Amino acid sequence: MSRRFAVDPWAVRETRLDFDALGQTESVFALANGHIGLRGNLDEGDPHALPGTYLNGVHELRPLPHAEAGYGYPESGQTVVNVTNGKILRLLVDDEPFDVRYGHLRAHERELDLRAGVLRRAVEWVSPAGQGVRVASVRLVSFVQRGVAAVRHIVEPLEEGARVVVQSELVANEPLPPPNRDPRAAAALRAPLEGESWGHGETSVLLSHVTHASGLRVTAGMDHVVAGPPGTGLGAESSADLGRITVTADLRAGQRLEVVKFLAYGWSAARSLPAVRGQVAAALAEARHTGWDGLVASQADYLEEFWAGADVELEGDAEIQQAVRFGLFHVLQAGARAEGRAIPAKGLTGPGYDGHAFWDTESFVLPVLTYARPSAARDALQWRHATLPAARTRARQLGLAGAAFPWRTIAGEECSGYWPAGTAAFHVGADVADAVERYRYATDDEQFERECGVELLVETARLWRSLGHYDPHGGFRIDGVTGPDEYSAIADDNVYTNLMAQRNLRAAAAAVDRHPDLGTDLGVDDGEIARWREAAEAVAIPYDEELGVHPEAEDFTQHEEWNFATTRPDQYPLLLHFPYFDLYRKQVVKQADLVLALHLRGDAFSAEEKARNFAYYEARTVRDSSLSACTQAVIAAEVGHVELAYDYLGVAALMDLHDLEHNTRDGVHMASLAGGWIGLVAGFGGMRDHDGRPSFCPRLPSALTRLSFRMGVRGRRLRVDVLPDSATYRLEAGAPLSVTHHGDHARVAAGRPVTRAIPSAPEPPAPVQPPGREPPRRA
Amino acid sequence: MSRRFAVDPWAVRETRLDFDALGQTESVFALANGHIGLRGNLDEGDPHALPGTYLNGVHELRPLPHAEAGYGYPESGQTVVNVTNGKILRLLVDDEPFDVRYGHLRAHERELDLRAGVLRRAVEWVSPAGQGVRVASVRLVSFVQRGVAAVRHIVEPLEEGARVVVQSELVANEPLPPPNRDPRAAAALRAPLEGESWGHGETSVLLSHVTHASGLRVTAGMDHVVAGPPGTGLGAESSADLGRITVTADLRAGQRLEVVKFLAYGWSAARSLPAVRGQVAAALAEARHTGWDGLVASQADYLEEFWAGADVELEGDAEIQQAVRFGLFHVLQAGARAEGRAIPAKGLTGPGYDGHAFWDTESFVLPVLTYARPSAARDALQWRHATLPAARTRARQLGLAGAAFPWRTIAGEECSGYWPAGTAAFHVGADVADAVERYRYATDDEQFERECGVELLVETARLWRSLGHYDPHGGFRIDGVTGPDEYSAIADDNVYTNLMAQRNLRAAAAAVDRHPDLGTDLGVDDGEIARWREAAEAVAIPYDEELGVHPEAEDFTQHEEWNFATTRPDQYPLLLHFPYFDLYRKQVVKQADLVLALHLRGDAFSAEEKARNFAYYEARTVRDSSLSACTQAVIAAEVGHVELAYDYLGVAALMDLHDLEHNTRDGVHMASLAGGWIGLVAGFGGMRDHDGRPSFCPRLPSALTRLSFRMGVRGRRLRVDVLPDSATYRLEAGAPLSVTHHGDHARVAAGRPVTRAIPSAPEPPAPVQPPGREPPRRA
Repeated sequence: MSRRFAVDPWAVRETRLDFDALGQTESVFALANGHIGLRGNLDEGDPHALPGTYLNGVHELRPLPHAEAGYGYPESGQTVVNVTNGKILRLLVDDEPFDVRYGHLRAHERELDLRAGVLRRAVEWVSPAGQGVRVASVRLVSFVQRGVAAVRHIVEPLEEGARVVVQSELVANEPLPPPNRDPRAAAALRAPLEGESWGHGETSVLLSHVTHASGLRVTAGMDHVVAGPPGTGLGAESSADLGRITVTADLRAGQRLEVVKFLAYGWSAARSLPAVRGQVAAALAEARHTGWDGLVASQADYLEEFWAGADVELEGDAEIQQAVRFGLFHVLQAGARAEGRAIPAKGLTGPGYDGHAFWDTESFVLPVLTYARPSAARDALQWRHATLPAARTRARQLGLAGAAFPWRTIAGEECSGYWPAGTAAFHVGADVADAVERYRYATDDEQFERECGVELLVETARLWRSLGHYDPHGGFRIDGVTGPDEYSAIADDNVYTNLMAQRNLRAAAAAVDRHPDLGTDLGVDDGEIARWREAAEAVAIPYDEELGVHPEAEDFTQHEEWNFATTRPDQYPLLLHFPYFDLYRKQVVKQADLVLALHLRGDAFSAEEKARNFAYYEARTVRDSSLSACTQAVIAAEVGHVELAYDYLGVAALMDLHDLEHNTRDGVHMASLAGGWIGLVAGFGGMRDHDGRPSFCPRLPSALTRLSFRMGVRGRRLRVDVLPDSATYRLEAGAPLSVTHHGDHARVAAGRPVTRAIPSAPEPPAPVQPPGREPPRRA
Repeated sequence: MSRRFAVDPWAVRETRLDFDALGQTESVFALANGHIGLRGNLDEGDPHALPGTYLNGVHELRPLPHAEAGYGYPESGQTVVNVTNGKILRLLVDDEPFDVRYGHLRAHERELDLRAGVLRRAVEWVSPAGQGVRVASVRLVSFVQRGVAAVRHIVEPLEEGARVVVQSELVANEPLPPPNRDPRAAAALRAPLEGESWGHGETSVLLSHVTHASGLRVTAGMDHVVAGPPGTGLGAESSADLGRITVTADLRAGQRLEVVKFLAYGWSAARSLPAVRGQVAAALAEARHTGWDGLVASQADYLEEFWAGADVELEGDAEIQQAVRFGLFHVLQAGARAEGRAIPAKGLTGPGYDGHAFWDTESFVLPVLTYARPSAARDALQWRHATLPAARTRARQLGLAGAAFPWRTIAGEECSGYWPAGTAAFHVGADVADAVERYRYATDDEQFERECGVELLVETARLWRSLGHYDPHGGFRIDGVTGPDEYSAIADDNVYTNLMAQRNLRAAAAAVDRHPDLGTDLGVDDGEIARWREAAEAVAIPYDEELGVHPEAEDFTQHEEWNFATTRPDQYPLLLHFPYFDLYRKQVVKQADLVLALHLRGDAFSAEEKARNFAYYEARTVRDSSLSACTQAVIAAEVGHVELAYDYLGVAALMDLHDLEHNTRDGVHMASLAGGWIGLVAGFGGMRDHDGRPSFCPRLPSALTRLSFRMGVRGRRLRVDVLPDSATYRLEAGAPLSVTHHGDHARVAAGRPVTRAIPSAPEPPAPVQPPGREPPRRA
């Protein structure tokens, strides 16, 4: 398979348009700022795989049907809505629609520029009637002006003059292709938007809609600056589901028609129609005031600052270099301006998983944003905090104290239709707490801690204390829950869950110690703190003495082995070909679970335990989830399998550029893209943050000759340069900082870098993977 | 609460019509023969709670919706259809409809006669206009003529003459009250019958329909014999959904109008319209030929023979005497002429559980029928055998060998929409095997064994062998399954399941030893037999050494105790007020599970283990299922709590007469009614049949002064008379038989009864139940 995208350190570029890959490229080329998301659909709308325009938080409700109902089952689901499409600039050339499926596409290039933050397109096309045109468009979703996107669209005839018409549109209730039967894809929502108000000016249109069941008001607006030859005409029209500005021009050879389209979006569950309409008109006015060049310049400035603090540089693997920056760019796009809304599993790049946010956000995306863009991590945790009322209500419904965060949601309510792999996965609470603690360590943001952090820790700790119980020997058990591995469920004493709960309980106790006034406000007394600490000390951690490994959960290692010998390659992912009951009762692992505990709670395992556990689970992990490879990379690197770690890193980082799971069409895998960074920084950088002090155990695979990364740590900017034999720690900004290098403490200060040698790696026996599930070698 | 039904040893009679209890009485007064079921609706149709006419096996398909789909989930459900209602005889008196809600009901009596096998009704009613009439009806569903039911309906004016009109109807697609579930599912069953053919003669009508999705052809027919004064008129009409014979008469005081209505039903998935129509016409002709008196006489003869072989007599508790006969009568009605169709959980008395059959049939109903009406037990097992193709297909889909019988079904395909409490309850296979073995022991029916029994044993044994696996120490584990207790699920090594699987594996091996030719036909070789026997020997039986009890499943006794102190009385049944996840992870038991193992696999436990286990589970069993009380009665009696057993017997036997679970409206609880017999025979009679030889440990509660029961055993008829201090075993027919009395062997022969003293009971400490969940005392 030849590469779809050219390898370039700062861009993702295609030079050939493959209709079969439209869905993938729409996701890869999606632009977003955490508030607005525009899939990389072609300007002219057709052909497309999946048109997509999303506003973070805009969702519709749909009934969740159950063949057999049960107490506490969610009966209403939330599904992301494809809102009014403002990307469209249709083109007619001598009365023929510009559609690259017809005529002759002489040249095609699209480029996602990771420093400019724009999507560029350049096309040369000859119509079926023989008229050639060059179309050049540039699209951006502004990081700076949160409600604004813009397109600059230029048409010029190639040899002879042409009559051209550009129709710049707003289209609501676009027909969508029917979803496939994979349960992970989004549910179809036909015409979710009800027209409420529409109108146009000379160059502008505003359309307002309300979603039927969820009652959210959405306003989309567009305004235009047109530059064409004398005689260029302009018309405007609007109706409930269509706004259109029509530009007509007769272009002679050498002349061009330039349309700059400013787009603005606003939505609210509470604000009135005039208020939302006014907000969008204001955003449009501001965009027009800033102008195209101004938007482009501020976009570049924003990204320059981002890369200065977050860039990762590699020598020795140009493809991974591109992939990790691509991943960081998408992670930034998902969270930059989310501001009180979730970071969904697909960001705002596609409708996969109904647009829901999962624990992935806290456990994979926020560990990156915390060090790369702390304000975005804070925003995401503020969203969790804002959903505490729903989580408390859910906990009460389940008979529990504290807060039970949902397995999947947009607005905060549980939307999982299958509780054994949803509600039972209580670890999401500890994952939130872990992200709160990580953010605190990394930022010392006391305001956040007082406003959100302490309450999140307290309410999640309360959940654990009520969920667990003491066995007759004083062990604190947490029974009947589901860990990260979705090929097991409703198990007792899942080690990952228990260890994360332990950290959660301790963190809550410490937080109330730090802020006794907040503890009082939350009704925490000394007895409750003591009960948290006692439970944390007593947490049961099953261990299989005979095998010398930790079972993923109690009795896991007693279960039957999966018969890999009879499992055909086309039977992966297993969940589409085997019943849950069979997966649950056997030793087959979808994704890192105990191995994720080795990473996130590495402080709870000895080096020998890590090595044995990794080898044991490596042989049983089929990696049917994109949430696995980066964790396997991290622990493989730690226990000495650096080349294997490198292979896993490739899987995580290239998930979407190579469409490894064949579903990038539904949106990029945000956690896997974050996993590229995690694989490099926590894997080959060996970065851990268990106790609030960053520690490093860097060690490079043979292909890499250098790895440099930057992290923000408590207001400082730390730069780490790893070479095959040594690592240098450099403080680029801020007060001196203590770091740990392979267990040795060092103090770095501005202008006083510290260089340390890298000790040789342990050389454990090579682990085996299930046949056919080995990661591709990055030879 | 005053009694709804008079206590009578051979009848269930009401003398007051309570509109609020119409649903219960419609179920209690239902007539059926295993093929046709008529709910006890009033002749005139209105008022009703739930009109119901059922043909065993006639079902419609409906989509089973899943909020999140999964591999192997059933997507089509089967639901019992309310077929053409032929019970209706409407009456007009001087132009006013006879409707007991209006006017004045001067006298009302309905009586289910358990020896005559008829439902009698006698009413005196005065119309709003002041015209009094007496209506007397008798209804029967023939045990002898399988496709036939009949009603004799007599009207006479009370004081003055009256003009009367009787409309005898066939009504298809009756409107039903909405069920309590997804309205879309209900829509699928609105008007399930599509008219195919209709027509009438002078006194008869035939209506033929086809069900929309399942494509079953149903024909209903009626014919009449009318006797009235001169001038009595007769008219007939028919349309797609209505057949009507109208009888008009002017009755003077002392005159009467008698209408005898013969009803016949036929259905087929394969036979042509003319064939099914002809079959119904023939059944009608035969019924008319037999005549009303002939049908009544043959019904009584049939029941006389039944009671001679199956009656249970009590002294000391007239209410239980009535209840056990009522239960036996309904069990007979459910199975007598099922002939290749299932015995549903509600028989043919109501639409509860969608008309599905469960494991209840094999584990509760067949143990009664096997000794009381062996031909009906055989028929039911032949139905299971007939569903083997579907069960094999299901096993393949689940990745298993052999046959996986469905959790709930009408036609054989799995219809459970919630796999943790459906498909995962694999014990149904062992329950079928257990019923096969019991039937063989009790009948020596070699033909059945060769035609069905061996194959059922082999295919279920194959399932177990493929479902279980060996742990490193050689224990044969069965992981991730659900036992009878629906408040636990997806557990490892459920003791009931494992012990029943053990018996299943051994029985299959022995059956192939007995019939090597059949083994060869089924592809069984010596190796496979050896693998069954090895697995049976090695079956893992978890035991809690510290507590000295068997955990229901591995680690069960490590789970948190349910907090009964904070559970309010209105929170039962728990499943309607607490999430499954909470029930599953705690020590709370819906229904006998380990205690059922103590009964059905009593040979695997010592007396001390039984006593300790019973006490342990008694404190944790909330009895939210009607499948529990009889088993608790049996084991309570065995371990020495005879008075407690008596209380539990009352719960089982009076379930429907007292509407203890407030849902008798949806149909009687067939397994609980069977449980009345089980509680008496296996409880106070101490009957066990572990090894094919009936053994008894009789012991009466203080209220009972005598218990007599009859059982058919290998062609003999054994009668057991239990008095407080002794028991007498009497052979009423057949060759001599060995029995065991409290462990001592005895040989009984015709005319040579054996009397043995009853040893004094053990007196273990009284067990406790969860607060509020004690059975009502039968003081």
